[in-house]
Amino acid sequence: MGVESAMRWRGRPREECGIVGLFQVPQAANYAYLGAYALQHRGQESAGIVSSDGEKLYRYAGMGKVADVFTEEKLRQLVGQYAIAHNRYSTTGASFLRNAQPIRLESRFGPMALAHNGNLTNAWQLRKRLEQEGSLFQTTVDTEVIGHLMARSSESSFEAALVDALSQVRGAYSLLVLTPTALYAIRDPHGFRPLVLGQKDQGWVLASETCALDIIDATYVRDLMPGEMLCFRETGIESRFPFTPQKTSLCVFEFVYFSRPDSLVFGKPVYNIRYEMGQRLAREAPAKADLVMPVPDSSLVAALGYAAESGIPYHMGLIRSHYIGRTFIEPDQKIRDFGAKLKYNAIKSVVEGKSIVVVDDSIMRGTTQRKIAKMLRQAGAREIHVRIASPPTRHPCFYGIDIPSQRDLIAATHSLEEIRRYLGVDTLAYLSLESMLEAARDPSSFCAACFSGEYPVPLDEGVEWSNQKSLFDIYEIEEKR
Amino acid sequence: MGVESAMRWRGRPREECGIVGLFQVPQAANYAYLGAYALQHRGQESAGIVSSDGEKLYRYAGMGKVADVFTEEKLRQLVGQYAIAHNRYSTTGASFLRNAQPIRLESRFGPMALAHNGNLTNAWQLRKRLEQEGSLFQTTVDTEVIGHLMARSSESSFEAALVDALSQVRGAYSLLVLTPTALYAIRDPHGFRPLVLGQKDQGWVLASETCALDIIDATYVRDLMPGEMLCFRETGIESRFPFTPQKTSLCVFEFVYFSRPDSLVFGKPVYNIRYEMGQRLAREAPAKADLVMPVPDSSLVAALGYAAESGIPYHMGLIRSHYIGRTFIEPDQKIRDFGAKLKYNAIKSVVEGKSIVVVDDSIMRGTTQRKIAKMLRQAGAREIHVRIASPPTRHPCFYGIDIPSQRDLIAATHSLEEIRRYLGVDTLAYLSLESMLEAARDPSSFCAACFSGEYPVPLDEGVEWSNQKSLFDIYEIEEKR
Amino acid sequence: MGVESAMRWRGRPREECGIVGLFQVPQAANYAYLGAYALQHRGQESAGIVSSDGEKLYRYAGMGKVADVFTEEKLRQLVGQYAIAHNRYSTTGASFLRNAQPIRLESRFGPMALAHNGNLTNAWQLRKRLEQEGSLFQTTVDTEVIGHLMARSSESSFEAALVDALSQVRGAYSLLVLTPTALYAIRDPHGFRPLVLGQKDQGWVLASETCALDIIDATYVRDLMPGEMLCFRETGIESRFPFTPQKTSLCVFEFVYFSRPDSLVFGKPVYNIRYEMGQRLAREAPAKADLVMPVPDSSLVAALGYAAESGIPYHMGLIRSHYIGRTFIEPDQKIRDFGAKLKYNAIKSVVEGKSIVVVDDSIMRGTTQRKIAKMLRQAGAREIHVRIASPPTRHPCFYGIDIPSQRDLIAATHSLEEIRRYLGVDTLAYLSLESMLEAARDPSSFCAACFSGEYPVPLDEGVEWSNQKSLFDIYEIEEKR
Amino acid sequence: MGVESAMRWRGRPREECGIVGLFQVPQAANYAYLGAYALQHRGQESAGIVSSDGEKLYRYAGMGKVADVFTEEKLRQLVGQYAIAHNRYSTTGASFLRNAQPIRLESRFGPMALAHNGNLTNAWQLRKRLEQEGSLFQTTVDTEVIGHLMARSSESSFEAALVDALSQVRGAYSLLVLTPTALYAIRDPHGFRPLVLGQKDQGWVLASETCALDIIDATYVRDLMPGEMLCFRETGIESRFPFTPQKTSLCVFEFVYFSRPDSLVFGKPVYNIRYEMGQRLAREAPAKADLVMPVPDSSLVAALGYAAESGIPYHMGLIRSHYIGRTFIEPDQKIRDFGAKLKYNAIKSVVEGKSIVVVDDSIMRGTTQRKIAKMLRQAGAREIHVRIASPPTRHPCFYGIDIPSQRDLIAATHSLEEIRRYLGVDTLAYLSLESMLEAARDPSSFCAACFSGEYPVPLDEGVEWSNQKSLFDIYEIEEKR
Repeated sequence: MGVESAMRWRGRPREECGIVGLFQVPQAANYAYLGAYALQHRGQESAGIVSSDGEKLYRYAGMGKVADVFTEEKLRQLVGQYAIAHNRYSTTGASFLRNAQPIRLESRFGPMALAHNGNLTNAWQLRKRLEQEGSLFQTTVDTEVIGHLMARSSESSFEAALVDALSQVRGAYSLLVLTPTALYAIRDPHGFRPLVLGQKDQGWVLASETCALDIIDATYVRDLMPGEMLCFRETGIESRFPFTPQKTSLCVFEFVYFSRPDSLVFGKPVYNIRYEMGQRLAREAPAKADLVMPVPDSSLVAALGYAAESGIPYHMGLIRSHYIGRTFIEPDQKIRDFGAKLKYNAIKSVVEGKSIVVVDDSIMRGTTQRKIAKMLRQAGAREIHVRIASPPTRHPCFYGIDIPSQRDLIAATHSLEEIRRYLGVDTLAYLSLESMLEAARDPSSFCAACFSGEYPVPLDEGVEWSNQKSLFDIYEIEEKR
Repeated sequence: MGVESAMRWRGRPREECGIVGLFQVPQAANYAYLGAYALQHRGQESAGIVSSDGEKLYRYAGMGKVADVFTEEKLRQLVGQYAIAHNRYSTTGASFLRNAQPIRLESRFGPMALAHNGNLTNAWQLRKRLEQEGSLFQTTVDTEVIGHLMARSSESSFEAALVDALSQVRGAYSLLVLTPTALYAIRDPHGFRPLVLGQKDQGWVLASETCALDIIDATYVRDLMPGEMLCFRETGIESRFPFTPQKTSLCVFEFVYFSRPDSLVFGKPVYNIRYEMGQRLAREAPAKADLVMPVPDSSLVAALGYAAESGIPYHMGLIRSHYIGRTFIEPDQKIRDFGAKLKYNAIKSVVEGKSIVVVDDSIMRGTTQRKIAKMLRQAGAREIHVRIASPPTRHPCFYGIDIPSQRDLIAATHSLEEIRRYLGVDTLAYLSLESMLEAARDPSSFCAACFSGEYPVPLDEGVEWSNQKSLFDIYEIEEKR
Repeated sequence: MGVESAMRWRGRPREECGIVGLFQVPQAANYAYLGAYALQHRGQESAGIVSSDGEKLYRYAGMGKVADVFTEEKLRQLVGQYAIAHNRYSTTGASFLRNAQPIRLESRFGPMALAHNGNLTNAWQLRKRLEQEGSLFQTTVDTEVIGHLMARSSESSFEAALVDALSQVRGAYSLLVLTPTALYAIRDPHGFRPLVLGQKDQGWVLASETCALDIIDATYVRDLMPGEMLCFRETGIESRFPFTPQKTSLCVFEFVYFSRPDSLVFGKPVYNIRYEMGQRLAREAPAKADLVMPVPDSSLVAALGYAAESGIPYHMGLIRSHYIGRTFIEPDQKIRDFGAKLKYNAIKSVVEGKSIVVVDDSIMRGTTQRKIAKMLRQAGAREIHVRIASPPTRHPCFYGIDIPSQRDLIAATHSLEEIRRYLGVDTLAYLSLESMLEAARDPSSFCAACFSGEYPVPLDEGVEWSNQKSLFDIYEIEEKR
Repeated sequence: MGVESAMRWRGRPREECGIVGLFQVPQAANYAYLGAYALQHRGQESAGIVSSDGEKLYRYAGMGKVADVFTEEKLRQLVGQYAIAHNRYSTTGASFLRNAQPIRLESRFGPMALAHNGNLTNAWQLRKRLEQEGSLFQTTVDTEVIGHLMARSSESSFEAALVDALSQVRGAYSLLVLTPTALYAIRDPHGFRPLVLGQKDQGWVLASETCALDIIDATYVRDLMPGEMLCFRETGIESRFPFTPQKTSLCVFEFVYFSRPDSLVFGKPVYNIRYEMGQRLAREAPAKADLVMPVPDSSLVAALGYAAESGIPYHMGLIRSHYIGRTFIEPDQKIRDFGAKLKYNAIKSVVEGKSIVVVDDSIMRGTTQRKIAKMLRQAGAREIHVRIASPPTRHPCFYGIDIPSQRDLIAATHSLEEIRRYLGVDTLAYLSLESMLEAARDPSSFCAACFSGEYPVPLDEGVEWSNQKSLFDIYEIEEKR
């Protein structure tokens, strides 16, 4: 992901990136496209594919969603049996086409392309050092550091240089590296971000989540292990563990919010874990109410769990619109809660006069929940009880989740009662950290730093993230979509 | 709607068109745009807006969804305090930009624009007669007939000519007519299609459903009455009933499938009626099962009603993707049920080993239900019980619903047992006609011709719809999106 | 051409439209495209092609030049062995895609397309009458009147109705009419505008000028005669003269300015006639000077004639840029004669200290010549003698030439001496009317109304052209290129 | 220019690139745009502008001509009082947007942009060395080497590093370098390519030719001297000569073909020198003929000189079309000399039965001249005498002129008589090397290597240009225009 991203946020956490790789699958780019389409929820800012026909790499990337970026003609040009694809998350402002992944680099080892999910914690420091030594950077994406480290490595083989480079970076990376003749899949030693291996006919598939296997009729084989490097070559597949082992730190937020409910993540079914979080929440934070409702679509499963466990009827009190497209123009006279209205509408005949449990997956700034509460009140809701199917989010993430800085996290700076008043609701309660981790099973294997503040890998000393803006000294004017 | 549409269908019935009108509202086009956005579910083929600044009309229309067709710059050019907007339904092949509504016509009365929801049953006959008399048609849309009848009317005022023209057409029309200085809103004497009146500050709003009022903070005032003509002029509003009264025939399919669950339609809450249909279905057609699930998103509310009434746990056994965009390219090696896979994925951890009730709103061809059943089987479902929250659909609609021709309606040509076998499910049952109409309240006010075959207005004798293809003698090559 | 056009002008007269037709030529649209490309100088506002495969018509038109409007893909869709093409002239403001020709009309005779070069003098009157009778017009192009007259004709065959309609219009028309099975080529009884017949392998070609035959390797056969109607059908070609004969009135401006110098027009070589105009000018209006120069590119041939006859050396004192594209943005600080500078640059080393004869083809407003004179002075020209290879232009054209209204024609309102002073030149002289017509050979066959004021066909009484603006009551917002 | 360019050629030599720079001129990007427009003849593949507002750089570049690439909106975003612009030459195939100049680089010195006219002869060697040392290249343009050499320089100031880098490159460079606060203009010590300094109000302008000064009302001050480096800073202008002096080697081809005839190049008027070349050719290679004609537009001035000196009448025997746009589609049945016909048409009434002198500026492959000769024969020319206003072109250029490889230069491999027969003409003659250089004045200051084979700077040993294809290991799929 881009080093500039940690400072931005738009109301909800937003996973950085989905990745897909194919090896020895005819028309690999077409499958990569479908896989990336299935992972669209992991990033909607840009989409890109690089393919290989065994001799050259072919690349196309664009701003926007997979289905808008690629056309039949472009896929036809992405020839070959190997391919990697990447979805980048959506932000405002400093999003540039030249930061779209997979990034391509040409070095003394020849051409390569990288698709990266995660965030390197010492990228800034490494970049400054490399620039002092005479390297010219092409993007503001942390991933590029890996290419420069390889180019300057004393190792003479591509693979050794790749291991050498990765040994110097810290943080989170589920990484696909494509050369004209090989595909590498690597998961960092902590295993922060998911990466699964599947089989498609005679070939192989890699993906962030299993839903990308399902769409192309590929079979799930297993997850890559933390610290594992798989190398796919015409001569066969090799598995290595070239890095110093670390404590496993799977991102629990994948279960709370990010992953699709139809995926297996870290080998476990997201739907069932999320449903259990809702059930546990009903037990830990019961409420007397006429109905339980979700904030569609992200808390749908947790709300079902809550309703089932509590015995309170489940209803859709809000309708969500899925058509939101280009920037919307508000007329001069302000429309009340304009942004929320484009996305949600309360159903008066459902909520009027009712006491309601609203289940949501997490609270960041609290602004969306506040608007929804207001909407429900205006539609006549008598009581509103907000139940959050995770603990209070109090800390930023350095490993690839776009969580706001601490001062913008309402739970980091306000008491439960203050938040309740801000949201304008009758009661507010969270799921406990222990219960969340138990629902996720095997509690000690997770990173829950955004809730607990316990970071498995520290951010580099001396790095002031706000300095990173200085990377944008050349403003490239790009076509609007 | 286009006269050519009755022959096409793509797996689900598809409402023809949503309409919005604004009168004496500053930046009327911006509000028309938001209203049309809220009605996007009623038509996604094309979108258009015509505005008036009191002197001239300004028009823009394009293929695709509202949010893709309009940009800030285009809205800026649509000046004035009066505006009408139109969403046209989505079909393949013969969709042409020149058929996009609102259509514009210039006659001896000056310029006018028409936005029409519904279908005229004698349009073909009228068109043939007008062509014989020397009229040149610009579109293949039935609505254009109204303009030609006006132009040839012996009446000398615009309004009298409009009444004269509408007195000659038969069938369904909720119609908005904009001139530089006036806005007319008319609902046909049967009242087939909905049309509501709302208030926005000092001005007025018209819309197919109330969800278009909600998004712009307008207040619902009342439904137009069947046969009512509202005329908005600077000098005031006038209500008239200039047509021969007819038996009221509200389209019951608005409740079964079309309207948004957060709308009031024909003055009644869609959500509650649809929920009750699900409850009645549970009583009429119970099933022994482990879980109830909807086919998202259209049968979500009916499934909730079924689950609540039956006491069987409600689960999301299918995930639906909302990202589908441009034509998808399937790789050479066929992917099993490719089209359905782009839209749905079954959740194995939910359905495996389970006996399932799948609630759907209606069955047309049965192809989608068959694919979903196959998906659920492959994910391990033990038993599948399909329950349809409406009676068997056996007849085409002549009033603006895109229902397939009779030979393609599976219930028109096959027995219940044959359909069950075709779908590959364990049991299949429908809601009864009586129960559906009772759920919709005031049963005698409805048209349920697609279920019962009892048509309130007959299609013109001698009209063979397949002849209408001859309208397309000039193939206009248009830009692809 | 559009009835609204007579009021607009941009510094130079501008021919309305080039037309091309093909019959029984495989891939007719491709040849039509090349022919229209060769006639690009006759109109650069829009370009369109309609083809027929014997059953249907296929149409595409767009704003801009032929080579920008058409792509390989679009030409591929324009199937069939018959085609007509049209270039429309370039104006500002009220240019609309819906006015692009060939226009298509669907009537009781089925579909047809019309491509028209020329201007009908009673179009306005006819249109008002037709609108009163209930006709709805689609464009603001005078040509559309022909279609409505046909639709309302009492004749029952297409061809008889076409003759009936054309018998009612007056003015100038070289016209191509395409139906699915036939192609008609008609030249009005005065023969104002050119139209030639050529042969291409087994098929036939029609074009405004012979340069459109040259580019596709077609052979020139002959000009159509004034009043002649050629009908091409699968069964053969027929020539008829169905209209009342009139005095022949060939447009002499084709020789003065419009036609390409490599064309035969009215059967005569444009280059040689234009060269002779220059020679006669040298004899009628000699000058003592160091060099003769043209205003490139339009007066190049006349200037060569002048130089040869006078014995004064010929030089290129101005360079003309051919790259002008989209609107140019002038910085805030005004650039001296910005518009002229984008097009011309004087060559100081050629003109400095010299006495110069500048030969131009005609003077309309005089603004361009004034700017060029200023440019030459600033580059150091000692004396400037302007010589115009035609008589003073004093009258508007009603037959299809975009000449400014009389009050903007400098020669209509100012004396020779006043014009000379306005241009800022040392001497100014014109070619005489007699000499121009003699150079054009067969003087009595020409219309020279723009010079002499003698109109072969009067403009309709009571028609005030400025009223025609009222046609634009609906402003269609179109995509910018 | 791109290192890959030397291998490609399309019928005519083609200058690599025009450059423009502005310093302390309000709305500098707008002026840069107009200057680049005036230099459009020097390169039509891509166009780019980088501006500075004193703090940041702003960049936009696109494929195509200046007037097509830039819109008002894009120019508005290119803020600031400093700007550089670049036109890149047109080739087929391997032209990439990422190679468009000005290229931007971000190094430890901050951001910079480079616009380069010319070709570095040791770029390939330097690039290989830099890659070995760990540099990652972004483009396949030789110019990028300069940035990497700077980044790795031991110098600590930007300016010293720039001098250090340029001291290591060899070959031709007229170079503009923009940083947020300074503009550098450098001409290589041989002075191969032109670069002029002009004044615009209180600010400064740099351009390849003076025609770029004329269009923006700037005043020509002087040429930069070979080896001169001008540095523009807010505090003032400084002129330095930091490089080892070399023999002056001005490119004579600028006079023969490239520069616009209205420019001063190397301080001399192109028109007059080219005219004198024509006069000298008439004396050295006279012909008995009825008329002299040019191949428009490049040999127009030389043909005028020839006609004047010989006393043979001058005529335009060919018309050239200036509308050529996107790829043209030839119908299946081949049109005779299709490509040439799109560009030229012979005027039968001028050439029929005539003995003709065709003057051209140079011969590369001879294919165009052969087609033109055929066209003239078909139009009836009796005799054709080709006269070339330069010596036989026998050697490739390593300094920035896109001359074909030696095996494709017809004069390198065929005798005069063989070429004459290939062209299908009656006689063929060239201007002598001595006479050409005398016409250009100060003969010893020129590089005429393409004629004489005497290269002032040798190409690096061991470099096989055909190897450079290996740079294209990643094929970036770009939008078609």
